[in-house]
Parts: sequence; structure tokens; C-alpha cells
Amino acid sequence: MSDSRPIGVFDSGLGGLTVAKEIFRLMPRERIIYLGDTARVPYGGKSEETIRRFGLQDARVLLDLNVKMLIVACNTVSSVAIDYLERNIKEVPVIGVVLPGARAAATRSAAKRVGVIGTAATVRSGAYAKAINSIAPDIKVYAKPCPLFVPLVEEGLIDNDITRLTVQHYLYEMVDLGIDCLILGCTHYPILMEVIQSTVGNRIQLVDSALWTAKEAHHIMKALGAEYPAPITPGLTDPKEQPKKAGQFSVEASEGFAASRFLVSDVTPNFESVAETLLGAGLPSIEKVSVEELEEKEP
Amino acid sequence: MSDSRPIGVFDSGLGGLTVAKEIFRLMPRERIIYLGDTARVPYGGKSEETIRRFGLQDARVLLDLNVKMLIVACNTVSSVAIDYLERNIKEVPVIGVVLPGARAAATRSAAKRVGVIGTAATVRSGAYAKAINSIAPDIKVYAKPCPLFVPLVEEGLIDNDITRLTVQHYLYEMVDLGIDCLILGCTHYPILMEVIQSTVGNRIQLVDSALWTAKEAHHIMKALGAEYPAPITPGLTDPKEQPKKAGQFSVEASEGFAASRFLVSDVTPNFESVAETLLGAGLPSIEKVSVEELEEKEP
Repeated sequence: MSDSRPIGVFDSGLGGLTVAKEIFRLMPRERIIYLGDTARVPYGGKSEETIRRFGLQDARVLLDLNVKMLIVACNTVSSVAIDYLERNIKEVPVIGVVLPGARAAATRSAAKRVGVIGTAATVRSGAYAKAINSIAPDIKVYAKPCPLFVPLVEEGLIDNDITRLTVQHYLYEMVDLGIDCLILGCTHYPILMEVIQSTVGNRIQLVDSALWTAKEAHHIMKALGAEYPAPITPGLTDPKEQPKKAGQFSVEASEGFAASRFLVSDVTPNFESVAETLLGAGLPSIEKVSVEELEEKEP
Repeated sequence: MSDSRPIGVFDSGLGGLTVAKEIFRLMPRERIIYLGDTARVPYGGKSEETIRRFGLQDARVLLDLNVKMLIVACNTVSSVAIDYLERNIKEVPVIGVVLPGARAAATRSAAKRVGVIGTAATVRSGAYAKAINSIAPDIKVYAKPCPLFVPLVEEGLIDNDITRLTVQHYLYEMVDLGIDCLILGCTHYPILMEVIQSTVGNRIQLVDSALWTAKEAHHIMKALGAEYPAPITPGLTDPKEQPKKAGQFSVEASEGFAASRFLVSDVTPNFESVAETLLGAGLPSIEKVSVEELEEKEP
């Protein structure tokens, strides 16, 4: 069994490209249709009602394009609206980024103290704490919103004193609380991994939701027999035959990348540099779509 | 002659409250209907096409409420779309924040070197340079986008090392270029006035667009005889009779404030603290409106 339809991935903006990158790494044959709602980004400071409405509009754009699976790469939508999306979408499996990240942290924290950083809406929802405690009720979860991280990444201020000071500002309390696991609960944050790690120290393990979400998607597709068809000449392009170390990975080398589509609701002037930062590769092309037109049809 | 209709003021978010504040200070009897497009804020990184579309949608909401004047308190919309709005709106005078700020700077710069800071879109448009050079062609204008200033203000990081470092990061070049006048070309920036002034030094005069826009609106309303009707018992509430020093000003003391309306496209969780920071007073109440529904009717 196989399924040649693309995987749908959406985010409030371009941050979800870090999830797309992990999908290309783990499943190089898969095609992705990515949607970034760049006209209305960011979602992290908006109300739950608006986040639910925008999330369903985004999902509908991808469902109309016949995707085989929907990955909610946005931590904010995953935290606030995943139940709402699951209730409203019956056509395909819907995967958020919260549960995979929470599961990874729950099984890794020996100290039983986990930190979560994300947008204001992600933290307010308590979604990571609920997910972690549903697996391990004895784990204490400390969450902290870090609204400056996304603009710092989008400004390209990665290895910079402003960023180091900001990381200290947000995280010093959490380090004092004795966490040994920190969930990067926003798709932009993996870009800051090195500066965060050097600030919090090596005793604290960083959990990248993007990576664990791609693994979860891989498991589900295998279980459903929904993987992209194997090549006609087996072995030639099978990734198992061409083992790559993490450092060697290049998104462009994935078969699925060139056949993937990247949709945005606004062609923002800085999308090329931001995409390059997040994906580690330039986007082959982008297409502008409207996400607002379903407004009137909603429940 | 007088006109008791309210003044319409809109912004991409709550930043335009700094303009509203100056209106209440200069014209305490005037009622304002303020619209903040908090569901889609910020506009500064979006494309010109999207900024024009959103700006006209915002304007239409206020025109439908019978305002006597439209103040585009958003520097991004004023920079990118003021001509477009003027072409599409014939009912009432439309005032942007760029021209008043540019005029103030052009008449103040002895060194003939003016700096402008704002969003990416404001800087890219070159609107301030065009406006300044239409008045004084010999003035050199240096512009710099400062995308981190808005999130810093909204995080409440005003008197903070991160903010000082960020101000240095953005402005050290401009100081070296010998400007003697710096336009704060974004409605959030007046909140950072002290930290900016202490960083660039007292030799550089800061020009607050919000203040000069309120003055411009005042002039135009006087010229048109469109001011709010004088009180029946003259003198009692006439601001001229009760001179106040700048430090004494309180928005709540303005007659027009309590009768003003504050509309938002999303009731964001942090609107109260952000409004308090920008207006220097809590909002009496807010009303949620839809700004998107005119989508299909546009030219």
C-alpha cells in the first residue's frame, strides 16, 4: 500500500518550515504542500477564538488540495485548537506538534521537571502541561512565553548579544527551578538551539517539537500504509542505502522537495531570507493563496 | 460652525493610541472612534498590496460609523497606502502620520541630515524621504527599520538592558552619520523616547509623528469649522481656561475620552496592558468588529 498524495503542513507563518525540514530529512520521497498564513502572522498574541477560526481556514485550504495528512506545524494552533480541528476535519489524520514534543519530554525527564517555552497563547493554553501530565502525572511543568524569540530569528539575530541577553531574561528562572528538559514549543526556536543550550547549560536537554512531530507523522503513515510509493528501481533513491549524518543533510537533496508546493497568504518582502534561515534552503517557488474567503461558511 | 461627529483613527493594532492620546491632549472635547486591527497586526512586514487592502478595509469600518475625519495613525499604512486611500475615500479628509512628522523634521534639521526609524515597510517605501525632500530637497534622509522595537514595547521592556542594547544595535550607524533630527516613524516608538534619547544623545532631536499628526488634525478641523461644539457654559471645560503642563496631562480628564469608542478586530489577551502602556490610561471598554467582510466588494 502507498499513497502518492502530498502531506499538508500549515503554520501561521514560515516557522513551520522547521517541521517541513524534518519531514524531508526523515521521508525524503514525500511531497509537501506547505501553507504559511503570512498575511496574518503571528498568531501567538491573538485570542483563542481567532486562532481557532484562522486555523480551520488554513486547514481547509490544504484539504481542498487533496492532502493525505494534515500537520499543524504551528504550536499556537496545536495548543489552542487541535481538538476543534479534529472535530471539524474527518477526511484525513490531523497531527499537532504538542503531543509528540510532550511525549518526548515526559520520557526523558529524570528530574521530573520540564520547562516549556512558546508564544503567549501556547503557554496560556497549558496544552503541553496537560499532555505531559496525561503521560506522567508526577512531572512538574513550568511554562514561559518568549515573544521576542520569533522577531529575533526573523531579524537574523541568532548569534548576537541581544539574543543572549533575551535568552537569559526569559530562562534564568526556569534554570533555577531545576528542570532537566526544555521543550522548544515554537517552530522558530530550533534556530536558537545553540544559544539557548549554551545559556541554560548542558545539564538541560532541549526537546525540538519539530523533530518529534516528523517522527510521529512517519509512524502514522507507515501504520496506515500511506507512504509515498517506493521507487521503481529499488535501492537507488532509498534513503537507507545512502546513509547521511545529521550535518550532511540538505533539504534540496530530498526527492520530494522539488515536487513540493509552498503557499503563502502574503508574499512578504523578507520571506526569502526567513525561509532560508528556517529551512536551510531557498524555496523553489511560492504561490499566493487567499485564506480568508471561507469566512462566511464557518460553523 | 461645528461638527459633533467623532474623529476616526485607525492603526494596525494598538500603537495608534499614542496618536489618540495627543488628540485628547490637544482637543479634549473631541470624541474618537479608534479601530485597531489586532487580529492581523503587525502590518510592517507585509507586502504593499496587502497593506493597501487591509488599510482600506479598516477605513471603511470607520466611514460606516459616520466619522468626520479619518486619521491613519499607522505609519506603515501612511507610508505605503495614503495615496490609495485618498483616491478611494472622498467622503472626509484623510490625514496620515508621515507628512506632519516629515514637515516638523524638515524645518528643524540645521545639519540637513534627518534619520527615520520605522517598520520594514515604512522604510522600504521611502515615504518620509520623499515628503522631507518635497519640502527641503537638500536634506539627506537616512532610514532604518527597527522591527524589534514594537515587540519590546508590547513586552513592557522599556527601561531594560535588552532594549538599550537593541537601540544601540539599530542606531549607532545613524548617529555616526551626523543626523541632528530623528523621526520616530512608528506609533509604538514614543514609548521608547527616553531610552532612545539617552542612547543617541541630546544633540539629536526626536520628532514624534503622533504629536505632529494631532496638531495637523487640529489645524484642519479649525480651518473646516469642524470642531466639536463649544460647551454651553463657556469657560468651564474650555482647555484654555485650565492650562495644564505636559506632565499633568491625563487622558481620563478629557471630556471626549469617556464618549469615545475603541474597536478591535480581536480581543487579544494582552490588550489591556498594551493599551495602558500606549495611552497612559486603561480603555473604558472595547468592541469587537469584523474588518474582513468587505473583501469581495473591493476594486
